[in-house]
Amino acid sequence: MELKAIARRIQEKHGIPATERDVVRVFSAALASPDIWRIVDLSEIPVLATCEVLRAFAEAGWVEFINARVSVTEDGKVVAESLGISPAKELRCPRCRGRGLELTPFATLAQEFHELAKNRPEASQEFDQGYVTEETTVARAALLYARGDLVGREILVLGDDDLVSLALALTRLPRRVVALDVDQRIVHFLREAAREKSLNLEVHEHDLRDPLPPELLRRFHTFACDPTESYRGYLAFAQRGLSALRGPGCAGYLGLTRLEASLSKWRQIQRALLEAGAVITDLFPNFHDYVNWPYIETMRAWPHLPVKRVPGKLEIWYRSALIRVELVEEPQVENVRYAGDIFTDEEAATT
Amino acid sequence: MELKAIARRIQEKHGIPATERDVVRVFSAALASPDIWRIVDLSEIPVLATCEVLRAFAEAGWVEFINARVSVTEDGKVVAESLGISPAKELRCPRCRGRGLELTPFATLAQEFHELAKNRPEASQEFDQGYVTEETTVARAALLYARGDLVGREILVLGDDDLVSLALALTRLPRRVVALDVDQRIVHFLREAAREKSLNLEVHEHDLRDPLPPELLRRFHTFACDPTESYRGYLAFAQRGLSALRGPGCAGYLGLTRLEASLSKWRQIQRALLEAGAVITDLFPNFHDYVNWPYIETMRAWPHLPVKRVPGKLEIWYRSALIRVELVEEPQVENVRYAGDIFTDEEAATT
Repeated sequence: MELKAIARRIQEKHGIPATERDVVRVFSAALASPDIWRIVDLSEIPVLATCEVLRAFAEAGWVEFINARVSVTEDGKVVAESLGISPAKELRCPRCRGRGLELTPFATLAQEFHELAKNRPEASQEFDQGYVTEETTVARAALLYARGDLVGREILVLGDDDLVSLALALTRLPRRVVALDVDQRIVHFLREAAREKSLNLEVHEHDLRDPLPPELLRRFHTFACDPTESYRGYLAFAQRGLSALRGPGCAGYLGLTRLEASLSKWRQIQRALLEAGAVITDLFPNFHDYVNWPYIETMRAWPHLPVKRVPGKLEIWYRSALIRVELVEEPQVENVRYAGDIFTDEEAATT
Repeated sequence: MELKAIARRIQEKHGIPATERDVVRVFSAALASPDIWRIVDLSEIPVLATCEVLRAFAEAGWVEFINARVSVTEDGKVVAESLGISPAKELRCPRCRGRGLELTPFATLAQEFHELAKNRPEASQEFDQGYVTEETTVARAALLYARGDLVGREILVLGDDDLVSLALALTRLPRRVVALDVDQRIVHFLREAAREKSLNLEVHEHDLRDPLPPELLRRFHTFACDPTESYRGYLAFAQRGLSALRGPGCAGYLGLTRLEASLSKWRQIQRALLEAGAVITDLFPNFHDYVNWPYIETMRAWPHLPVKRVPGKLEIWYRSALIRVELVEEPQVENVRYAGDIFTDEEAATT
């Protein structure tokens, strides 16, 4: 079987753009681990595409599914060898887990945040939620600090099941923090925490499909958001963020996965961000580690998995990149209403 | 004095795009260190722009130049306080120096590379040279390894005073490594090292203003280069690299500084890379540390420095980001000849 043919099959069956290299990525991942979640993680392509590649490999006799594990066969190893495909590697620094950031100065924040986050609302499929680890949220605050986007700044967080606004406000360094969320549980939780700790944190219930209220436009130095990953949904979130910035020199922080967005979609998104007047200043792959959500077995990708095992809550397999953008021109975005489902497309796995 | 007016002055006097935020960056840098090279580094804007901002600050009485140091005055501190400007921070992980990579598995390579690099040719102003530290070159090899762009791959290095091709070939993991350089000293040095160590490394003398020879087009999985930073020069190098790649799924590694390229130029460059069919998969700021070159006192920025001190050879102040791109489409580039000076523009500092 040709790898190119498998890439075409992904495209034809799922409408997900894929290259031969993407098929190689799954092969490398399977050579590195027999665990389905580790393979999904290391493959760095949309989950449905990884599932399709594994099925094609099984048909070719290159892998077998035994005891809920993916095992590369002797035939598979010979093919990998002949194609020059080697096991996937990671060389993550064990101290900073690959983020490059020193978090020691944030130890107190981490402790305080941990205490508050204990009673956080559980992730809800209704709102496409799934939150990052506490360490990730603290690392995000640290990056804002290091980039000069925290101290004395006015910061808007668009959608906040990660409780980023809480971590930022807890540093007591920003001039103002505003969080928007559609989920009343999150709004209530953040407000309670803000009251209890006397934080400079405002929380508004807001559906990001609706335009931003005028009083939030052109007001902030920094925004943060973790957009839904359909192209349309991503742009909606990103443009809301950009339209809230004061102008050139202001910055935005966005998450983006490889597991629900192909590199073709990444390119589309990056082009749109640049078109809107921004430049990409930082792009750290795998900055965000996600806590497993309770709806794994009802997520879109579940029936496609060739091997089914519910991962432990803190068994990290879903990660995302952090992209920092900075405006170099006045933002070119419209503050329009988005109708209908902006959450799903072909590459979606978790909704 | 208004910060915006200083930003305009940079634009008017030097033709370098600048925002109010860029002026704030220099203020933050000066609040963090009195050392001119540390300020240049932390300011993260073109060197000539930093010099202009410091002169404007001196005129306003916010800084003084005393004993070859930049000292923020009491007035300056009051202004910074009133504008909410805080000292620049870095939170670099002390283990990986902010690159996020674990280099322990490359300790033997580092030692072998160190032995060979002892007799490397010194950086020459004629060819806009200036090489990175040995650790940086090893880290670059490690990143290629982690991304699956090293083992079994055919790799092209375009311009190689950093001796990247040597480090890559020394791992003995790539299928083929080819290096191009215009400098006969580099060509000779690499060839000698390859012969001595029996490395799978080909070296050709080639001026990158000239089209790539046809036998190098569409042949490689990976390219690496550290382009000159005029917009035209950058694109010339990047497009040569892209045109050498086989197609979608192949990757390129490029350096880019903040000290000779404004964020406006970054945006132009990123747009061109995306237009050419590539996507940005990684962007690590300050991945590359440079060894100081022997022509500091004749570089373009020298006369502009408000405070003059020749930095020590390993006193790092010139750093650059590492950008990894991957093709998602067939590359859209032309293999044309570039005439004249493609090395200099308004933002140049070292040529």
